[in-house]
Amino acid sequence: MTTRLEHDLLGEMTLPQDVWYGIQTQRALDNFRITGVPISHFPELVRALAMVKAAAAHANQAVGTLEPHKAEAIQAACQDIIDGALHDQFVVDLIQGGAGTSTNMNANEVIANLALSKLGHPRGEYRHLHPNDDVNRAQSTNDAYPTAACLSLQFAAEPLRDAIAALRDALQDKGAEFTDIVKMGRTQLQDAVPMTLGQEFEGFAVNLGEDIDRLHDACRLLCEVNLGGTAIGTGINTHPRYQALAVARLAAISGKPLVPASHLVEASSDMGAFVYLSGILKRFALKLGKICNDLRLLSSGPRTGLGEIVLPAVQPGSSIMPGKVNPVIPEAVNQTVYQVIAGDLAVTLAAEAGQLQLNAMEPLIVYNLLNAMRMLCEACHMLQTRCIEGIQANRDQCARHVEVSIGIVTALVPHIGYADASRLARAALHSGTTLREQALAEGLLDAAQLDRLLSPQSMLAPHLEP
Amino acid sequence: MTTRLEHDLLGEMTLPQDVWYGIQTQRALDNFRITGVPISHFPELVRALAMVKAAAAHANQAVGTLEPHKAEAIQAACQDIIDGALHDQFVVDLIQGGAGTSTNMNANEVIANLALSKLGHPRGEYRHLHPNDDVNRAQSTNDAYPTAACLSLQFAAEPLRDAIAALRDALQDKGAEFTDIVKMGRTQLQDAVPMTLGQEFEGFAVNLGEDIDRLHDACRLLCEVNLGGTAIGTGINTHPRYQALAVARLAAISGKPLVPASHLVEASSDMGAFVYLSGILKRFALKLGKICNDLRLLSSGPRTGLGEIVLPAVQPGSSIMPGKVNPVIPEAVNQTVYQVIAGDLAVTLAAEAGQLQLNAMEPLIVYNLLNAMRMLCEACHMLQTRCIEGIQANRDQCARHVEVSIGIVTALVPHIGYADASRLARAALHSGTTLREQALAEGLLDAAQLDRLLSPQSMLAPHLEP
Amino acid sequence: MTTRLEHDLLGEMTLPQDVWYGIQTQRALDNFRITGVPISHFPELVRALAMVKAAAAHANQAVGTLEPHKAEAIQAACQDIIDGALHDQFVVDLIQGGAGTSTNMNANEVIANLALSKLGHPRGEYRHLHPNDDVNRAQSTNDAYPTAACLSLQFAAEPLRDAIAALRDALQDKGAEFTDIVKMGRTQLQDAVPMTLGQEFEGFAVNLGEDIDRLHDACRLLCEVNLGGTAIGTGINTHPRYQALAVARLAAISGKPLVPASHLVEASSDMGAFVYLSGILKRFALKLGKICNDLRLLSSGPRTGLGEIVLPAVQPGSSIMPGKVNPVIPEAVNQTVYQVIAGDLAVTLAAEAGQLQLNAMEPLIVYNLLNAMRMLCEACHMLQTRCIEGIQANRDQCARHVEVSIGIVTALVPHIGYADASRLARAALHSGTTLREQALAEGLLDAAQLDRLLSPQSMLAPHLEP
Amino acid sequence: MTTRLEHDLLGEMTLPQDVWYGIQTQRALDNFRITGVPISHFPELVRALAMVKAAAAHANQAVGTLEPHKAEAIQAACQDIIDGALHDQFVVDLIQGGAGTSTNMNANEVIANLALSKLGHPRGEYRHLHPNDDVNRAQSTNDAYPTAACLSLQFAAEPLRDAIAALRDALQDKGAEFTDIVKMGRTQLQDAVPMTLGQEFEGFAVNLGEDIDRLHDACRLLCEVNLGGTAIGTGINTHPRYQALAVARLAAISGKPLVPASHLVEASSDMGAFVYLSGILKRFALKLGKICNDLRLLSSGPRTGLGEIVLPAVQPGSSIMPGKVNPVIPEAVNQTVYQVIAGDLAVTLAAEAGQLQLNAMEPLIVYNLLNAMRMLCEACHMLQTRCIEGIQANRDQCARHVEVSIGIVTALVPHIGYADASRLARAALHSGTTLREQALAEGLLDAAQLDRLLSPQSMLAPHLEP
Repeated sequence: MTTRLEHDLLGEMTLPQDVWYGIQTQRALDNFRITGVPISHFPELVRALAMVKAAAAHANQAVGTLEPHKAEAIQAACQDIIDGALHDQFVVDLIQGGAGTSTNMNANEVIANLALSKLGHPRGEYRHLHPNDDVNRAQSTNDAYPTAACLSLQFAAEPLRDAIAALRDALQDKGAEFTDIVKMGRTQLQDAVPMTLGQEFEGFAVNLGEDIDRLHDACRLLCEVNLGGTAIGTGINTHPRYQALAVARLAAISGKPLVPASHLVEASSDMGAFVYLSGILKRFALKLGKICNDLRLLSSGPRTGLGEIVLPAVQPGSSIMPGKVNPVIPEAVNQTVYQVIAGDLAVTLAAEAGQLQLNAMEPLIVYNLLNAMRMLCEACHMLQTRCIEGIQANRDQCARHVEVSIGIVTALVPHIGYADASRLARAALHSGTTLREQALAEGLLDAAQLDRLLSPQSMLAPHLEP
Repeated sequence: MTTRLEHDLLGEMTLPQDVWYGIQTQRALDNFRITGVPISHFPELVRALAMVKAAAAHANQAVGTLEPHKAEAIQAACQDIIDGALHDQFVVDLIQGGAGTSTNMNANEVIANLALSKLGHPRGEYRHLHPNDDVNRAQSTNDAYPTAACLSLQFAAEPLRDAIAALRDALQDKGAEFTDIVKMGRTQLQDAVPMTLGQEFEGFAVNLGEDIDRLHDACRLLCEVNLGGTAIGTGINTHPRYQALAVARLAAISGKPLVPASHLVEASSDMGAFVYLSGILKRFALKLGKICNDLRLLSSGPRTGLGEIVLPAVQPGSSIMPGKVNPVIPEAVNQTVYQVIAGDLAVTLAAEAGQLQLNAMEPLIVYNLLNAMRMLCEACHMLQTRCIEGIQANRDQCARHVEVSIGIVTALVPHIGYADASRLARAALHSGTTLREQALAEGLLDAAQLDRLLSPQSMLAPHLEP
Repeated sequence: MTTRLEHDLLGEMTLPQDVWYGIQTQRALDNFRITGVPISHFPELVRALAMVKAAAAHANQAVGTLEPHKAEAIQAACQDIIDGALHDQFVVDLIQGGAGTSTNMNANEVIANLALSKLGHPRGEYRHLHPNDDVNRAQSTNDAYPTAACLSLQFAAEPLRDAIAALRDALQDKGAEFTDIVKMGRTQLQDAVPMTLGQEFEGFAVNLGEDIDRLHDACRLLCEVNLGGTAIGTGINTHPRYQALAVARLAAISGKPLVPASHLVEASSDMGAFVYLSGILKRFALKLGKICNDLRLLSSGPRTGLGEIVLPAVQPGSSIMPGKVNPVIPEAVNQTVYQVIAGDLAVTLAAEAGQLQLNAMEPLIVYNLLNAMRMLCEACHMLQTRCIEGIQANRDQCARHVEVSIGIVTALVPHIGYADASRLARAALHSGTTLREQALAEGLLDAAQLDRLLSPQSMLAPHLEP
Repeated sequence: MTTRLEHDLLGEMTLPQDVWYGIQTQRALDNFRITGVPISHFPELVRALAMVKAAAAHANQAVGTLEPHKAEAIQAACQDIIDGALHDQFVVDLIQGGAGTSTNMNANEVIANLALSKLGHPRGEYRHLHPNDDVNRAQSTNDAYPTAACLSLQFAAEPLRDAIAALRDALQDKGAEFTDIVKMGRTQLQDAVPMTLGQEFEGFAVNLGEDIDRLHDACRLLCEVNLGGTAIGTGINTHPRYQALAVARLAAISGKPLVPASHLVEASSDMGAFVYLSGILKRFALKLGKICNDLRLLSSGPRTGLGEIVLPAVQPGSSIMPGKVNPVIPEAVNQTVYQVIAGDLAVTLAAEAGQLQLNAMEPLIVYNLLNAMRMLCEACHMLQTRCIEGIQANRDQCARHVEVSIGIVTALVPHIGYADASRLARAALHSGTTLREQALAEGLLDAAQLDRLLSPQSMLAPHLEP
């Protein structure tokens, strides 16, 4: 194996000649092996890093602090990476000390070596183009990394938004399909008053749809980037015009409406936008979880549960009980939801651990957010295609439930009062008859009145007349 | 003791004649004793409940489903409560089963009895005016309670917003006071590059100030109320014009821009707005915690810590170590922060537990949110008045730290490169000299160059020229 | 109002003559108002503090570092407090900065003044007997407070253990009562195979009973106390024989098998025993929550749910739906469970925040643990007396469910194989018949075989023969 | 590609001939893609599954319910897997619906096919040996999976225990190395009283060492397995002697002291042992985090922090600040700690979600526990080898801190009283002198007295004489 020798502050190391990263990446590889998940697991982060480096090189060239041939080689290298090249060279574990320094240096080194090769130099010949002095010029991990993180999260939000929308639409379609199926609503798992199955699924759709807006809000907060702040937000080692140029260029490359943070010292250690996003993801996860809980309740049975809907069978349910089909898709979603909620706690803990001018735990935050978005995206898609779209209503069961329910006594209250209605309900329950029969037997209302008051039309929407 | 006899679905009970609540409240009192914290602990909730009942009575009268003399008596009773009367009659424990039914019935009964007394009837004579049939008319716990909750949280947000603003202003004032004090910035607790103490405190102010906007966003989501949905959102037992009238009236009474929820079935079980608010409170708490962590680090000492600031002494610090003064105010804030984060988890768990048409755990959510807002309000005020306003800078220590620091080598990088600068830094560190002396000794730069590059002006803001 | 003047390190303050606490308590009262919950809310903590002070005075006298008349007066004062006196003088808010210094000083001051009065001196005349020099002699907050905390938690564990045992017994009784009721077991909310309702309730009892042992384990860890370590565990300002004497005396007074911590420096900042206890409380809460979830599922209905059991009605369930009875007691327990889980997070966060020789956030830990134990105790008692003891089985529904269930096909697998059994199950489900009828119709087994294989005796326990 | 056709309850699928798993595994592969982490990521789980299947086959043969040639082939296949074969065929995603059914079926199918090949049959010819009827005989996912989980966690505990012990030993060695270095102890980040750096590191060692015992306790709880309970704990489809034989055999194969659960219905849905283990892991993580926080504080600097120890430099610290070395190893450990705490929340949420006779979320629990143990193991090793072993003390700084500290005034309290000592401390602080000089200047004590009282020997351990 051909090798090359690189050195840094701490000494020197031998690297295989064919790797595109350098000594600092290698040290990080040796140091960190907690998760086994490398940066490349999240291509949106690799792309975002390359965009930041390209934007910085552009701005440095513009203000005269980076020679044109270097700036151009760096930008060309970054473009290759944005287009998908060398992602497998982003090898550092996502849980790493140093507030992302190793990730930043991994990017600096890969880009430097790729730029060197474009300039006709072998890898490692950093005297021609240096990972720190050139690729990282006018940057610190402390501004380059969070900026790339903000960008990568916005990239990750796109497929998630689409997945939510598709799931919402599938729920909406089911709502339309079930619009004429009257069933019992339940509160506290006790029979309440009638509604339609369509209203139930429509409600799910409306519920999730709103979170597309919330995700958008979160992305808006992520548009405020601290690029140009360098080490601690004072902008040390930058040209006065650099920040504006770099951020504008990054906005152009990425297509995202990025703006400079209003107070760079504040922005350097602030995790607020990440915490906000995490809260939004948790909120969405909770909604998803509630819907899956409901699906599992409504499809419980087949013979001894609520049995109002039937979920599509996607795999045999039991290794011992033949014919059993379980709600495995909602169950997998529920577990994803728990993992996302747990991820929000990791983000919370990491955010709380910031000290003075930096939050050294930022890599954990970025890891959990990217992971949560990916898992939620997958969960939405799975739920939509393998469950929601195939749900069937059990019309007979829905109708039977309405017929035998006591809860419809509610519709009589405006006419006979709460106290009499209560008594009537208990009587019907204890005698085992229907509410209608009990009311007739007691002579409280006549058949025509009952027909009118207990018709679905009367109970499914406001209709009361004085 | 004079007593009266009341009865309900389950039987009858004797109550002291002088209580304003009725049998259902008494049952709840007997049933629930978990926290010992009654509804009246949160006057904003009591007021909000009374407003909801007044608005409903108004709307019911307008559509003709409630007799004018009853509607007027109810509204008069509600107004008394809004003005502060009978809060001590809201006695039910905040952790209660039933999705708030006991809280709603506590309100219905107190209002009914107060209205009865206005009409000249003794308490308990519900045949003249009934807690359920009249006060609760066209309502269910499931719309009245969440609506009151949304309103009460908006009320609670007002003093919190003011407390945040006052704290932000105090931090901003300190930022201005410390604007000329140059000190070392630190990343990962390691010496980084210079900044001013003013920038540090300004950063705190900017950081917290942003959350006033986020709190406003949260209140906006809370403006969408489900009043009119009754039991499950279908609006059963309401007049077709009732919802619009009731919500409009409630907006007028409360002064909050309330609007009807767009989908009432969805809104009946959705905890989204509460989860959102909880996330915002957690975010703010995290920021507060980070600031207090920093204050404790910066004031560590007095002789063997960072010692850059001095917190005001508010109490002797130790029962055994004389003269010790501890950062007790930030410590109490940190603990408040943890409690608020924990409260967010309680909200999360309760939100996840919604089933079908209702979330029965809503009382826990409301309790934790109101509690968090009150604790944060108190913490902000305590931090502002008992700590921030009295902070003094230790100018000598700040200056000395800059002088001896190695981190200022960063400013030389554009001139001598990252590799040489690294070597220089390590040399200075190991020889025990200052960076300046080491650079001079090595002849890397002359005194004039060093003066210019290492001046605070050069290091505190972008200044680099090509 | 008669007043007295006291002074401390920071200056002087006027106190009402009739309060038993002193200047440092007053400062803490002014400083901390986060929760509004004073120390006296937890009498077990007040008693534990007094025991620690009595034990220290005893040991100090024994080694000759405290004059006998002072030691005796202090011990007499402590005994009064242990017996219930002056608890209302323990006024400081439980969330406080200073790692419990204010709580410790509150105890020191009340005890000093009570001892002074026993010696014939007016309150505040500390030259005769001093809160710090005498009551706090050979102690620091950093050993006295955690030791008292460990003790108070053991006291709080007693009623909790009893409440768990009583709840377990009630569940066990129901298990015995329901021993002959065959019903369908369900996995993933889908019909599985038969079991008895007795097995279900017995399972609950066994499940909770185990946690009495775990609570005992936790108390065992709390027996290792750091009394004698003083400020940081080095035992500065103690006599070489003091620690052993003080701990032995405290064990004698409290009746708990306390032992000195094996490494006092470690013990001074270690929160391990508290974290352990919190984990045990969370575990128990989770079990309680699972049982309540099950009770709510099993009692769902009355007409459109599982309806296998009927919970006792403890209050009307709805303000709008007459006759509705809700599972309010389990719901309140579920909410308590969430609050306890949240409390565990507060403990976790506080435990993580220890720094160097102390954890300044200990008051939050103690508050949440004492609160959790009290809430769980109340919840167990409420669940036992207001729910479990009154549960009735719906025998008809249980029997009907077994009859119509498909899941009993499982018992046929050893005889006809998994594949044929699967097919048979699906056929019965789709044709709407019972499994037995379908099997007969297909001629797979004859009636006698089916009678034998599908008898409850065959399905409720291991019985298979080759 | 050669293929084979398999069928199940839902229909048929074509599989590549060269895979060892079957149709149900393939369906699960298609259904679940949330994490991308397959079962094989945890070899201890694969081994445990194979052991369970081998033990069951053995027991079934012994009671006569499985033909000897099948039982032998199954056991031989299992042994191959235990020895490391075919792990890459355990492909299902760890987050899966169905309470582990897919994992169980993955095992059943791989083992069946491997056994078939041993019997000379091609894969997929299940009429000769069937995944359900033979490999899964007398088992359900609901007992086989949790039993394997309990076993795998005990396997995972072994390297973790070793890693903790090695880390503890490294800390203990440092404690011994630093035994003569006197330094200031700090409480609440404020100067307290002297101690040795050796005591500090010894304290870390003691602190972590205790958790080896706790881990042992957790493993003990995991020894109670529900094998033999089958679907819901009633043991349906098992021979009366099967359970005892199977568990005994599993104990023999695994070398773990497994015993049958005392109440199988309870055990089927109980997550208590997992929750307990999770709490123990969280507790250990919190301790690890506290130590790393301390290491970062103690090594803060190099010039403007506490600077009492120097961590080994394992990589350059900054991309912009030359010569900076950051505490990246402790930072990575801190992040691991947060992830483990978050994992405990996922376990908590999943444990709370059990319903009736099963907890369908068990796969998430197992995933998070195995993951936490692996991450903690790696973190301990990293911390030991890349940080602790290379730590050096900064003796000069430690000594200087003691010299200038005010906190040593504590040692004078028994002699001059708390009040005078307080005044003296404040005077020294304000005048900028040392405590000793101030005391001499005030004539409170003479030089000889001060020498004696302020000697390290006097302050590092109990020494007070009356």
